[in-house]
Amino acid sequence: MTSDAGRSRPFGLDLTREFADLPFDGHLERRLSALGGQFLDQSAYARLIAEDPLVYEVYEIHLPRTAGQLLHGISIVHPGRVGDEYFMTKGHFHAVRETAELYHCLRGRGLLLMENEEGDCAAEELAAGRVVHVPVGWAHRSINTHEHEDLVTFFAYPGHAGHDYGTIERQGFRKVVVARGGRAEILDNPRWRAGR
Amino acid sequence: MTSDAGRSRPFGLDLTREFADLPFDGHLERRLSALGGQFLDQSAYARLIAEDPLVYEVYEIHLPRTAGQLLHGISIVHPGRVGDEYFMTKGHFHAVRETAELYHCLRGRGLLLMENEEGDCAAEELAAGRVVHVPVGWAHRSINTHEHEDLVTFFAYPGHAGHDYGTIERQGFRKVVVARGGRAEILDNPRWRAGR
Repeated sequence: MTSDAGRSRPFGLDLTREFADLPFDGHLERRLSALGGQFLDQSAYARLIAEDPLVYEVYEIHLPRTAGQLLHGISIVHPGRVGDEYFMTKGHFHAVRETAELYHCLRGRGLLLMENEEGDCAAEELAAGRVVHVPVGWAHRSINTHEHEDLVTFFAYPGHAGHDYGTIERQGFRKVVVARGGRAEILDNPRWRAGR
Repeated sequence: MTSDAGRSRPFGLDLTREFADLPFDGHLERRLSALGGQFLDQSAYARLIAEDPLVYEVYEIHLPRTAGQLLHGISIVHPGRVGDEYFMTKGHFHAVRETAELYHCLRGRGLLLMENEEGDCAAEELAAGRVVHVPVGWAHRSINTHEHEDLVTFFAYPGHAGHDYGTIERQGFRKVVVARGGRAEILDNPRWRAGR
């Protein structure tokens, strides 16, 4: 582990190499059990939870958590489904709502699902070479809509953003993304409840 | 032109397309005359200035200039030389020194030359798939070391960073990058003077 202070000199990351070989400071693995209550099909979830598959991974660079810093890293959502619903990240708001985020898709195919506290919803396509801007105030979740390839994105956000996972854990997203006839469809989430 | 307020909803940019076809808000062109005094070989500069070639271009997204925003866009440094010295950007510090920047190289080959006010210098390679982190407090300049291809990078920096071009205009960078025997070499800049 490199301390925050160790990043005061410039550095480069060659994202064409194996991520595990790069000098990231942190590596997080999220298994299905970390997404309890988020999927529509609870019986499919119950069947899968015995093996608790790896759903996504995050490689991070540690930097001071102040406004001028740019925290960044790699997100990898593996392919898979819970019933008709694609593997996805937990999704979160930033604790400091007035902070944006950028996702730069390196490979794979998916959607960045977003919503704000006024109830506006959006989904932007993720595919190699696409950058998606998450405006200030929007929660965001990456969804891998490919049948067998990883969805890999490079992300960057302001150092003071912080994470609020709790709001989404309690109420979910207003939309879900499901496989219908071999393609991704965005539907209203029947399990969503405001301020739950 | 899209107003700052028009970017309050999510959007995506497909960087595999022609940049001129994408919904950028601004497009800046810098010709050689904008880099007066920055190149070592002043007689080569004088010969080239008659045609004042296009050295680099920037496509930008306009967003509010506040701390939580992430300003971003595309920088294209064209291939070329002034004497032995490669085409490069003006280079700048951020007006708010305590702000970082990320460069994600999309294609081409070059160097990101950096220095801070304590006199530390660094150069990081730019090549497709490489991300370079410019720490808080470091001036930065992109240099195209390829003979005939553009150097194309996607950049992102905090909304409140601002630009200080004046310091580099007055004193230059401490290092220069020149072609020696077909490859790029980093040398001390004999024209550099502190606090000029």
